[in-house]
Amino acid sequence: MTIATSTLQLLDYDLCYLSLRTSIGLWTAFLCLLLVATDASSMVCYITRFTEEAFASLICIIFIYEALQKLVHLGEQFPINMHNQLDNLTVYTCRCSPPANASTDTLHQWSNTNATSDIRWDELTVKACKEFGGVFEGSACGPLGPYVPDVLFWSVILFFTTFFLSSFLKQFKTKQYFPTKVRSTISDFAVFLTITIMVLLDHLVGVPSPKLHVPDRFQPTSSSRGWLISPLGTNPWWTLLAAAVPALLCTILIFMDQQITAVIVNRKENKLKKGCGYHLDLLVVAVMLGVCSVMGLPWFVAATVLSISHVNSLKLESGCAAPGEQPRFLGVREQRVTGFLIFLLMGCSVFMTSALKLIPMPVLYGVFLYMGVSSLKGIQLFDRIKLFCMPAKHQSDLIYLRYVPLWKVHAFTFVQLTCLIVLWTIKASAAAVVFPMMVLALVFIRKLLDFCFTKRELSWLDDLIPESKKKKEDDKKKREKEDAERMTEEVEEDAPYDISFPIQALKGRADPSEVNISDEMSKSGIWRSMNPDSGRALKRCSSREKLPSVQISLEDEDGRKDAETPL
Amino acid sequence: MTIATSTLQLLDYDLCYLSLRTSIGLWTAFLCLLLVATDASSMVCYITRFTEEAFASLICIIFIYEALQKLVHLGEQFPINMHNQLDNLTVYTCRCSPPANASTDTLHQWSNTNATSDIRWDELTVKACKEFGGVFEGSACGPLGPYVPDVLFWSVILFFTTFFLSSFLKQFKTKQYFPTKVRSTISDFAVFLTITIMVLLDHLVGVPSPKLHVPDRFQPTSSSRGWLISPLGTNPWWTLLAAAVPALLCTILIFMDQQITAVIVNRKENKLKKGCGYHLDLLVVAVMLGVCSVMGLPWFVAATVLSISHVNSLKLESGCAAPGEQPRFLGVREQRVTGFLIFLLMGCSVFMTSALKLIPMPVLYGVFLYMGVSSLKGIQLFDRIKLFCMPAKHQSDLIYLRYVPLWKVHAFTFVQLTCLIVLWTIKASAAAVVFPMMVLALVFIRKLLDFCFTKRELSWLDDLIPESKKKKEDDKKKREKEDAERMTEEVEEDAPYDISFPIQALKGRADPSEVNISDEMSKSGIWRSMNPDSGRALKRCSSREKLPSVQISLEDEDGRKDAETPL
Repeated sequence: MTIATSTLQLLDYDLCYLSLRTSIGLWTAFLCLLLVATDASSMVCYITRFTEEAFASLICIIFIYEALQKLVHLGEQFPINMHNQLDNLTVYTCRCSPPANASTDTLHQWSNTNATSDIRWDELTVKACKEFGGVFEGSACGPLGPYVPDVLFWSVILFFTTFFLSSFLKQFKTKQYFPTKVRSTISDFAVFLTITIMVLLDHLVGVPSPKLHVPDRFQPTSSSRGWLISPLGTNPWWTLLAAAVPALLCTILIFMDQQITAVIVNRKENKLKKGCGYHLDLLVVAVMLGVCSVMGLPWFVAATVLSISHVNSLKLESGCAAPGEQPRFLGVREQRVTGFLIFLLMGCSVFMTSALKLIPMPVLYGVFLYMGVSSLKGIQLFDRIKLFCMPAKHQSDLIYLRYVPLWKVHAFTFVQLTCLIVLWTIKASAAAVVFPMMVLALVFIRKLLDFCFTKRELSWLDDLIPESKKKKEDDKKKREKEDAERMTEEVEEDAPYDISFPIQALKGRADPSEVNISDEMSKSGIWRSMNPDSGRALKRCSSREKLPSVQISLEDEDGRKDAETPL
Repeated sequence: MTIATSTLQLLDYDLCYLSLRTSIGLWTAFLCLLLVATDASSMVCYITRFTEEAFASLICIIFIYEALQKLVHLGEQFPINMHNQLDNLTVYTCRCSPPANASTDTLHQWSNTNATSDIRWDELTVKACKEFGGVFEGSACGPLGPYVPDVLFWSVILFFTTFFLSSFLKQFKTKQYFPTKVRSTISDFAVFLTITIMVLLDHLVGVPSPKLHVPDRFQPTSSSRGWLISPLGTNPWWTLLAAAVPALLCTILIFMDQQITAVIVNRKENKLKKGCGYHLDLLVVAVMLGVCSVMGLPWFVAATVLSISHVNSLKLESGCAAPGEQPRFLGVREQRVTGFLIFLLMGCSVFMTSALKLIPMPVLYGVFLYMGVSSLKGIQLFDRIKLFCMPAKHQSDLIYLRYVPLWKVHAFTFVQLTCLIVLWTIKASAAAVVFPMMVLALVFIRKLLDFCFTKRELSWLDDLIPESKKKKEDDKKKREKEDAERMTEEVEEDAPYDISFPIQALKGRADPSEVNISDEMSKSGIWRSMNPDSGRALKRCSSREKLPSVQISLEDEDGRKDAETPL
């Protein structure tokens, strides 16, 4: 949404914003319907991990950046006197005084008030002073008004405490204290608990931190508009047609946003059982776009961070695990109840205004920061960025490090990082309009990489199969290969020995039981399941030192069998 | 020191404090010399881990408590207006005004100033207003003066940032990024780096946080005293004799403090090579006590937290370790250079006042908090307290949990915790004078525990051998026992088989080589050093399933040997 609206910000000239937005929205909805009709969603096959992660990282970074930016903005809103002389506190004042050159507007306003002549400037409050166009004068005045004590630093404390507390409570699941039930409950409600604690703390301290602004009535945001918005309004007729151009950009963006989010949610590692519906999802988005546009509501698209958080919170893990063992991921609780309840509660927030307006804004910014940072965790791009400043011996056993040379991994990361930076620069600069094109360009850049990297390398670096599964498969393959090698080795090792006992050896070779036993042993699942080291143990047993006994034992057994047979 | 001086605080009636302190100090020095002469230091053998840890915990908690208390004290020193109305900022003032009923003192002071009649009260600064005995009036006034904006919250930010930053930098050693050299340097200078960063931050923000107060000249603290203090001074003569009673308490305390610290430093786990000198240390302390008392300096005793920190910082660890492996502890760099340099630099601080006075006090409090918390880590008492709220399956493999029933461990912890709470209560209450007796009482309480716990249990719960070493020894013992059991088992398992092949078995038994091979194999260090699982692997090889082959193999070998011998 942030990005979608940012492209629109360039367009507010002298036109009626809401009407233009409606016509763009309707065009976008139409174009999205066209995409559904033309089976365009099948193009998602070109969206690889490269594109996904660059996009998801960008969204996360936007979350983090905006949280911090809003905190900085609080610094402007509540300026502090950075060079207070504590000794002069008695003489610091900031009072309202009449402006030196009053404009006609101001004079007009003065005449409207009852007591025109005798405004007692000294006693005006900040709000009244601003209304009357007064000027703030005194040693305790900032550029726009009096310095505000304590609020900024208290906001900073709330912000960072919220971030660290929610991170701590979320990780509480893996701590050693308290029973599993208590821990997982705390972990599940980490953010809610944090907000509750911070609201209580803020209420107790009483510093007037900026609070969440909640409307107290159910009505349109502006009195000059109704519930429905006309796509034309006061704008000239050609805007209806011209809206198609920005709508095209919006369509690209919404299409990419929707599909990338869907691809991330539908990843194999989530083990979703119910089928994915790229076409249906886009259809719903298109219809909702139209409805929201006509009603002047924010467009509701697949917000990446929220969707991923939702899926993560529905993940089902094996309940009882041995201590130290990672709980196994079983799947996602696929249902529609949570989604339904979320939107029901969002609707009910109209009736909870008295509680909601106690929430300090810095606490919400802290939650945004937490969401951004915690979403970064699963992104492979950041794991690879970390590799830049990690000595080789500390690198963990990542599957791509097994098969791709380190410098090539770094090169791949570098390209992806450059894309991310370019995306960010475009988003932040005046050229934000072309941002959707750039997101689309990611897919082509990924295609270009086919020329620089071998197909094999790319399959390791840029694949949708989750890391752990790949590693397991790789381990399995390796083990099989080892088994095969060992087999050959054993036969080879047998060989020199056999020479010294040619008759026995020949006899052994002829008898199928000899080869079969060791063969069966290495193949048999029982041996492996008993102990992961069985392979090694087996090898040791059959190593050169003990070879004679093992070898001869088989012989002997055969001998016994031979002896028994005549009986 | 904190505790030592606290006992003295009760004694300042109408007597000259410094002189009384000097006479007490001289008595204490004499009594300490007496203790040295009477070989009292040999009593340290009664100081067990129980006493040590209760005392060390108390010191750590005092550090933490005082750090937090000082932060709370800042709240009184720099009161904030908790219920600011941001809209009324223009009308908030706190001005100085003449007192309603001026006392004679104040009137006298007024007459002394030049402009007696026309003091312009409105324009007086905070300091001047307090000097003239004025009263603060206005909506921005706290109980003792004007509300101070921002300073308190900025101090809170500095305090906690210092604590978390130094903890983070200290742990940087075990992170995966950057080469070992960089990481260990950052870790070693964690506190220094933190202070530097925080001073810079504080300087940049510019909020007038309370700074470290450094005298700018080298002189006695008060102009009414010289460099040397007379033990009698203006006090009556009997104080010289009466001082012996508090001196006795001081002696107990200093003796306990010194010896417990020495015992902790000299613990076996520190692998000190140079001998310990309990007597010599106490002699030096006694002499220094006398010198410090006569010169009116703070007594310099073995401050527990500082001494432990010093030893910890001198610990030598093996440089190159495999990733994931804990570096081995090699020993302590035993020398006198660091001690000498520390005190040299402390002396030189006289010439660094311009830099030192930039350090904000909250940063120092944060460092105290960090020192207190980080010293708690090595204390077993706290590991055991944690066990209270840890489910059994998450408990780590602690040696005492192997041999002592859990409820007895809890009982032991409970007694120790009670002692700690009693110590704390006494220290904080009006009965602080008996505190040294209580520390001494710890030793007797420990003796009483001999009746509630068996000797064996106490040896696990309250022993000076470090946990890891004990565990290693225990593991070794266990392994030996297992080996012995396996041996018996093997012989037993052989038995039923032998029955079916009585002749072979008899032959085998008769031949000493049979038993020898498996015996040698299980004893041989090579097998074990090759792989920790060798024991298991060996057992599997000799399990019932494969018994025939192994058994017969030996037979066969013997047979071969027999066959070879005639050749």
